[in-house]
Amino acid sequence: MSRIDEVYARIAEADRSEVFITLRPQADVAADYERSVADGGPLAGVLLAVKDNVDVHGLPTTAGCPGFAFAPESDAPTVAALRAAGAVVVGKTNLDQFATGLVGTRSPYGAVRDSRRPDRISGGSSSGSAVAVALGFADIAIGTDTAGSGRVPAALQGIVGIKPTVGVVSTAGVVPACASYDVVTVFAADLALADRSMAVMAEAVGPRPFPESRPCAAQERPVVAVPTELPGLDDRWRAAFGEAVHRAEAAGFTIKTIDLSPFLEAARLLYDDALVAERYDAVGDYLDSVADPVAAGLDPTVSAIIGAANRFSAVDLLRAHRRLADLRAEAMEQWGDASVLMVPTAPTHPTLAEVAADPVGVNSRMGIYTNFCNLFDLCGLAVPAGTVGEEGSGTAQFGITFLGLGHTDAVLVDVARRFLGDDAVAPSWAERDDAVELAVFGAHMRGGPLTHELSDRGARWSGEVTTTPSYRLVALDTTPPKPGLIRDPVAARAIRGEVWTLSPAALGGFLAALPEPMMLGKVEIAAGETGPTRWIVGFGCAADAGAAGERLDRDRW
Amino acid sequence: MSRIDEVYARIAEADRSEVFITLRPQADVAADYERSVADGGPLAGVLLAVKDNVDVHGLPTTAGCPGFAFAPESDAPTVAALRAAGAVVVGKTNLDQFATGLVGTRSPYGAVRDSRRPDRISGGSSSGSAVAVALGFADIAIGTDTAGSGRVPAALQGIVGIKPTVGVVSTAGVVPACASYDVVTVFAADLALADRSMAVMAEAVGPRPFPESRPCAAQERPVVAVPTELPGLDDRWRAAFGEAVHRAEAAGFTIKTIDLSPFLEAARLLYDDALVAERYDAVGDYLDSVADPVAAGLDPTVSAIIGAANRFSAVDLLRAHRRLADLRAEAMEQWGDASVLMVPTAPTHPTLAEVAADPVGVNSRMGIYTNFCNLFDLCGLAVPAGTVGEEGSGTAQFGITFLGLGHTDAVLVDVARRFLGDDAVAPSWAERDDAVELAVFGAHMRGGPLTHELSDRGARWSGEVTTTPSYRLVALDTTPPKPGLIRDPVAARAIRGEVWTLSPAALGGFLAALPEPMMLGKVEIAAGETGPTRWIVGFGCAADAGAAGERLDRDRW
Repeated sequence: MSRIDEVYARIAEADRSEVFITLRPQADVAADYERSVADGGPLAGVLLAVKDNVDVHGLPTTAGCPGFAFAPESDAPTVAALRAAGAVVVGKTNLDQFATGLVGTRSPYGAVRDSRRPDRISGGSSSGSAVAVALGFADIAIGTDTAGSGRVPAALQGIVGIKPTVGVVSTAGVVPACASYDVVTVFAADLALADRSMAVMAEAVGPRPFPESRPCAAQERPVVAVPTELPGLDDRWRAAFGEAVHRAEAAGFTIKTIDLSPFLEAARLLYDDALVAERYDAVGDYLDSVADPVAAGLDPTVSAIIGAANRFSAVDLLRAHRRLADLRAEAMEQWGDASVLMVPTAPTHPTLAEVAADPVGVNSRMGIYTNFCNLFDLCGLAVPAGTVGEEGSGTAQFGITFLGLGHTDAVLVDVARRFLGDDAVAPSWAERDDAVELAVFGAHMRGGPLTHELSDRGARWSGEVTTTPSYRLVALDTTPPKPGLIRDPVAARAIRGEVWTLSPAALGGFLAALPEPMMLGKVEIAAGETGPTRWIVGFGCAADAGAAGERLDRDRW
Repeated sequence: MSRIDEVYARIAEADRSEVFITLRPQADVAADYERSVADGGPLAGVLLAVKDNVDVHGLPTTAGCPGFAFAPESDAPTVAALRAAGAVVVGKTNLDQFATGLVGTRSPYGAVRDSRRPDRISGGSSSGSAVAVALGFADIAIGTDTAGSGRVPAALQGIVGIKPTVGVVSTAGVVPACASYDVVTVFAADLALADRSMAVMAEAVGPRPFPESRPCAAQERPVVAVPTELPGLDDRWRAAFGEAVHRAEAAGFTIKTIDLSPFLEAARLLYDDALVAERYDAVGDYLDSVADPVAAGLDPTVSAIIGAANRFSAVDLLRAHRRLADLRAEAMEQWGDASVLMVPTAPTHPTLAEVAADPVGVNSRMGIYTNFCNLFDLCGLAVPAGTVGEEGSGTAQFGITFLGLGHTDAVLVDVARRFLGDDAVAPSWAERDDAVELAVFGAHMRGGPLTHELSDRGARWSGEVTTTPSYRLVALDTTPPKPGLIRDPVAARAIRGEVWTLSPAALGGFLAALPEPMMLGKVEIAAGETGPTRWIVGFGCAADAGAAGERLDRDRW
């Protein structure tokens, strides 16, 4: 049975017709899959589900509203990038209409049910995308996230969701929810695949690309802020978060507690204040044009929210922005020296009935720990963090989200890897092409007395290396004692060291602080027993200091 | 006669009571002046006039409206920084009410007249500040600039006006005009003093400080964009701009022409579209509260503009922002590889009578070349560029403005210096403290084959230096030929080189691109015949290459 046969059999068997709004014919997907595997791109054979507010050429875009449907002229740039790398689109997934909701029930295509407990919600608005990944209908899925839509369903479905900094990745070809705060996200079962997919998707560069100075990794011992109070969580969910905090400590993180009040207050601005005008701006004209709401398939809750969003004046909006800036300043005082903020992704896992009884209230509670994120220009990474045994109602997936300041997406990947015990040394999706490799040989090596000079600058440990057999090390007269690497084609040997990757700004700052007689230039690195060599930036020393130093026959300091 | 006696005599003699809204008592200023000179700060004895929408503790803030006046509790941070450096406040200057205007006539404190031709306008809204400097009532003056208020009056008064990138300098303690686009500016008779004053004022850091990667200077041969068409200029004014273009060419700049249409279209958004709601947001509540407009001293033109500014919805504003973003994208296509855009600052110099006859129309024409600047996140530097003999009506001051992309303020200072023939090598106000000095000794020296590797990275030539007499140069086997600097305490001499200053990001990028055997580390620089030495980042070479090289007895390559 072929991979595609298996997946389509699983889809047929699952009786989850609400997950896909459009499922591509099996034969088409099978043909694309064969071609993808043969071409062997970086995402060869990876099955992709796309939230139906993101354009895929050849399939309608509905944004969860049949009356709104249109045939896009091209792939969204994010979709195009994934397809070019080999990803194969399986279909377009259901969502809370116009991406307005965190529940997954606000759709005329049916409420998307939890992958494990069908009486529960999937979480939304990227409901179908998250469930498609959780049920193995696709390997990865595209979501969007304005107030938590790329994180809440990841948590409830026990998968990974990466929400980049606003503006880093293109949102062209996406039906806006709140254009100023929308981002495109990725879901996958594990961090490695999510990260690899984001790396491809981020080739579709947005209007706010990463600056030259952004970090490649977290510090050696990152400070992780956690909330003092945990509103919305019952005792069992609190205990699960407490376990996640212990796990973070065990991973070597320093925990500090902060007051989340300004964060939570900003969350309320998104729906209760003039910021909601963004939603009217996005699709209000369409809603106003609908003569027959039932025929158009309008969701009554969504229509009510967006319809009420045109009541604010321009001055109201300016004042909301100012209020937001003030709250952000308060929040940043709480944030202080933290590398990341760790929060529960969702506070609870409601049933479909609970949402039906109070569609706005339950939805609002689901966003406690997500709504403020894009408003405050934070990036986020949602990962599974165990389960919660709920009395008489099975087991809930528990998830946490690491949040970082805008453009520190690479820090989140590093922290999440360490939290999950993933010892990958590959660059994260958020590492720029101009990051520089630096070869170090002495006190800057991992565990050495000067490692912090690299890790405090956001440098990422990138593995052990060996020079070509053309160097010698000498003992320099420095404190702490440092070895000097000297090229010496005659009486030479291969020297073992490490490579760290860092931004050009970090490298420049590192060089500026470097005391004599240490110097930086190009060092020849062996690629292996027989492979080609490469020259990367690395340590040497001033010639006079090198000549005066005693030859060393050890590598480690 | 003391300096203060002289200045107060000049003020009394000039019969320009409209310039100051509050002039401090001479005795107070004299006492402060004595103290300032004795203390010897960086701005010791510099007389400062402050636009009356910026708080000075002890003097009322009116924003040009008597009914609005209040007693501020403290200095604005910009004022506090200047005072702490020694600047002595002379008084608070007249302005177009609520900084709404580019003419200088919209004030119940009187229309501010041109410093040379009193039948003409001063330009505004920082009218009194510019005239105070032009007439020698103060050495420097604070202005504000939303749509040109720190540039248009500089041009008409023949002085320098520096308008920083939005957000770089604090606007706390400033009555907002359009809070999102307001900046605090400096006027002075010459660039050196304006730059020195901005350096102090910029200690009051705003919410968008300079990034680590920003340039310290322009390229060796900067590309200067100039408009293809010059709307609003008559033949004589066009000729003056043509002369400025020739002068720019003579200064070594490469000129390219661009279509200014998207820039000019954005300018119209500022008053004709929802962006104007910013003005209502700023002072609309006050205007609505005024029972007797005459008693409050409201300017009728300003009241009409601001009163009409509350008619827009939040959605209108979001759409205006989007339109602006689209226009900026079009404008940036025109901009292309230009280092700066050079425009006439003002297109003409109207009479008071012309403004009285058409207050809105003339005002609008005055902003053709300034209105778009802050909307597009550009920085600006307005400098005098000769005069225009006008038929039967004397001589007008002609000014040009260099405009740069946000955060390239240092590029503007460099370009303006070269345009004005000012060969200062000091850091500009916009150079960060973390800029790094790099000592170079060979092909990277000015005029050398590799100079562009520094100047293309925004490095600033910072003078010639000599090492301590502890080095030798050797000839390296490289293309182009490079000298290797080697520390050699025995058979050594002092080596002449150059220092370039660049951002950490530029230094990191430079190092990453540096081929072996060149290396960078610390080099010991002599401070003079007898002074102390200092270690700065500089060139050296790999020890093996150095040992193989033939000793050199020349410094220049």
